[in-house]
Amino acid sequence: MDKLFGSFATVRKSATVLAASSDNERKQALLAVAQALAAHKEEIFAENSRDLDAAKTAGIPDAILHRLAFTEEKLKSVTTGLKELSELRDPIGLTKEKRELDPGFVLEKRTFPIGVIGMIFEARPDALVQIAGLALRSGNGIILKGGKEARLTNRKLVEVIKEATLTFSFGAGWILGIESHEDVDVLLKAEGYVDLLIPRGSNAFVRHVMDNTRIPVIGHADGICATYIDSTADQDKAIPVCVDAKIQYPAACNATETFLVHKDIAPSFLPRLNAALKEKGVTIHADSSALPHMEGAVPATEKDFHTEYLALECAVKVVGSVQEAIDHIQNHGSHHTDAILTQDKAAAARFTAGVDSADVFVNCSTRFADGFRFGLGAEVGISTSKLHARGPVGLEGLMTTKWILNGDGQTVAEYSGPEGKSFHHKELAT
Amino acid sequence: MDKLFGSFATVRKSATVLAASSDNERKQALLAVAQALAAHKEEIFAENSRDLDAAKTAGIPDAILHRLAFTEEKLKSVTTGLKELSELRDPIGLTKEKRELDPGFVLEKRTFPIGVIGMIFEARPDALVQIAGLALRSGNGIILKGGKEARLTNRKLVEVIKEATLTFSFGAGWILGIESHEDVDVLLKAEGYVDLLIPRGSNAFVRHVMDNTRIPVIGHADGICATYIDSTADQDKAIPVCVDAKIQYPAACNATETFLVHKDIAPSFLPRLNAALKEKGVTIHADSSALPHMEGAVPATEKDFHTEYLALECAVKVVGSVQEAIDHIQNHGSHHTDAILTQDKAAAARFTAGVDSADVFVNCSTRFADGFRFGLGAEVGISTSKLHARGPVGLEGLMTTKWILNGDGQTVAEYSGPEGKSFHHKELAT
Repeated sequence: MDKLFGSFATVRKSATVLAASSDNERKQALLAVAQALAAHKEEIFAENSRDLDAAKTAGIPDAILHRLAFTEEKLKSVTTGLKELSELRDPIGLTKEKRELDPGFVLEKRTFPIGVIGMIFEARPDALVQIAGLALRSGNGIILKGGKEARLTNRKLVEVIKEATLTFSFGAGWILGIESHEDVDVLLKAEGYVDLLIPRGSNAFVRHVMDNTRIPVIGHADGICATYIDSTADQDKAIPVCVDAKIQYPAACNATETFLVHKDIAPSFLPRLNAALKEKGVTIHADSSALPHMEGAVPATEKDFHTEYLALECAVKVVGSVQEAIDHIQNHGSHHTDAILTQDKAAAARFTAGVDSADVFVNCSTRFADGFRFGLGAEVGISTSKLHARGPVGLEGLMTTKWILNGDGQTVAEYSGPEGKSFHHKELAT
Repeated sequence: MDKLFGSFATVRKSATVLAASSDNERKQALLAVAQALAAHKEEIFAENSRDLDAAKTAGIPDAILHRLAFTEEKLKSVTTGLKELSELRDPIGLTKEKRELDPGFVLEKRTFPIGVIGMIFEARPDALVQIAGLALRSGNGIILKGGKEARLTNRKLVEVIKEATLTFSFGAGWILGIESHEDVDVLLKAEGYVDLLIPRGSNAFVRHVMDNTRIPVIGHADGICATYIDSTADQDKAIPVCVDAKIQYPAACNATETFLVHKDIAPSFLPRLNAALKEKGVTIHADSSALPHMEGAVPATEKDFHTEYLALECAVKVVGSVQEAIDHIQNHGSHHTDAILTQDKAAAARFTAGVDSADVFVNCSTRFADGFRFGLGAEVGISTSKLHARGPVGLEGLMTTKWILNGDGQTVAEYSGPEGKSFHHKELAT
């Protein structure tokens, strides 16, 4: 048995106490973490400088350096976030269902923490604090592996967070930082120690995690999102939505990769879409029906419609109907986020019913797929799983439920056979 | 590629139409199935006779023959069940959350069918009808593998059900019966064709499924349930509850296998428990503290506390506190169903918070863990998973959700940067 399993067992033990701790204690712990981060900011900034220097030396691109930097501004943002989390309603013990089986015999379905969560994420130290905060608020133990470029910053952050919660009933054991690829391999094998894995990162990495563990995984590998422009779309509104969906942050998983355009508006709409995207420097791969209407576009191959560009590049296809758009999305998409732009309510209803994706949008940009924009507080990831949590995952996705039945000596025998009592199953307000 | 995959693809195609079908159409289909079963009952009974004859020749025990028999009474029970299902509220399209992100910009979390479900179950033809009914009501395609003793009955049932739904928009393709172990092996490999597996059966079989597929699995392997009798328990009520929990149906997964008794009441309670269980023919394995108070009991070994007897046999242990009971359950139980018998509300609260099981009961028999008793209609299984569905799984467990965002041309760019609009995130009634 790997000795890391011993550390994981410590997380489980502390998480068990954390799960049973009061709302107020977890609130105070969040505020203590916020205070400690502010009090130790110089040490944190110093470690972050060392990480940044090493990254610059290694020739890491500017965009990644920007995410790696832990600035005064980011510190303020995460401490504000922790305070906001402390003010959210306690997610533990919420009654989701309540039913009287028979007078005085009451069944409740109530929420409880999942247990211990293993989270693997990119080189963003502010994400570490957000994730730790979500775990603490929801009563879950957390094992964190951040991107290697942020190693020193993350190590210091975990140290400060641990110290801040040391005097609480659950102690400092609920959070554990791990650092190496070897540690991640052990994490993937930690069935029984870890209840849920949430990997973020490249498509290949997320698939690697999904393929190499028996622990349940929440997340998404691909983000091949489509926007379908229906024949009845308001074209003046559609153009800025399409531009936003493609270029507002092209590297995001919720950026649109494929535009599907109804054949009836192809001659009028495609030249406008072409001009708007070209102005932003987008390379367009158009199918044979779209190509004549899109000057400067290159011919699309089948592969383009399976590609997550994550760049200023997109595919365009002309379709004959809403159903054809749905079929294309079912066969090429990744069940993440897809949108229809239309003025026809029946077409919108058909699209939302027929597209089997976590997020299905009408008349807006696919880029809205995000826990903060959805009003979930923060998010730990976006799930394309159909089970448990789907779409952006916030506090609710970190909870499980228990069925609690309160009786007064009832036996099943009394409720059995032709002479037995029957259940009245009366729904009660939760 | 196995040719069975072609049949699975047909299920998916039909399920896609089924998922988008109206409430009324699915209601009519359920009633048509009920009618067809009644109309073809003689053929079904004839096939069932052949299955029963073969089972008797093979020396199958009476208890299993009883479950295998598809009688007039069972036909009536399943057709009534189908009618009741048709009267339940449509589980598709329910709004679980509704939030205005900004005036006129509304996000909804709505329920949709999971897709295609693979169900493996025991030799009970009535279970086939119940499961098919749940699938039809919830808009899911279903692949069914029943116990081999019921092969001919099941084949006929699937044939009748298919014929009954042939004229509906989704046709007969939504249901598929498979028969051999080889077919099950193909099913386990059918990632992409099947969204969820629900295996029922022996511990070893369920583990085999869980270990040999990448498709999500809902179910439970072990059912090592405990009943803890606290020092403040009402002993007069506790005795019949303990007896019920052990003997009302000893082969059930929710039967109690272990009794934990608080040390303060051991001298008074254990002799009474001993007498009551002995009267019912239960063999008792008692730990060294319990043994002196339980005449005729045999000494328990550590293995007894990890054993699912599924028979008139149980283990008994004396514990010093509620916490010790919780710790025992965490280390020996299977997170299925555990009960506390107590008059002390604080002890009950501590137990329900501390025991990490799907069902945690207070002052009643563990045998109540059941979808029908819980008021879920029927159940497809009992889940000990902490994700998605936990405990008895009814219609709700067969649903997933989509986030549907209805806009009017909103872009993320408008909501970005220091000058950007902000979200107001106003909760709306669902």
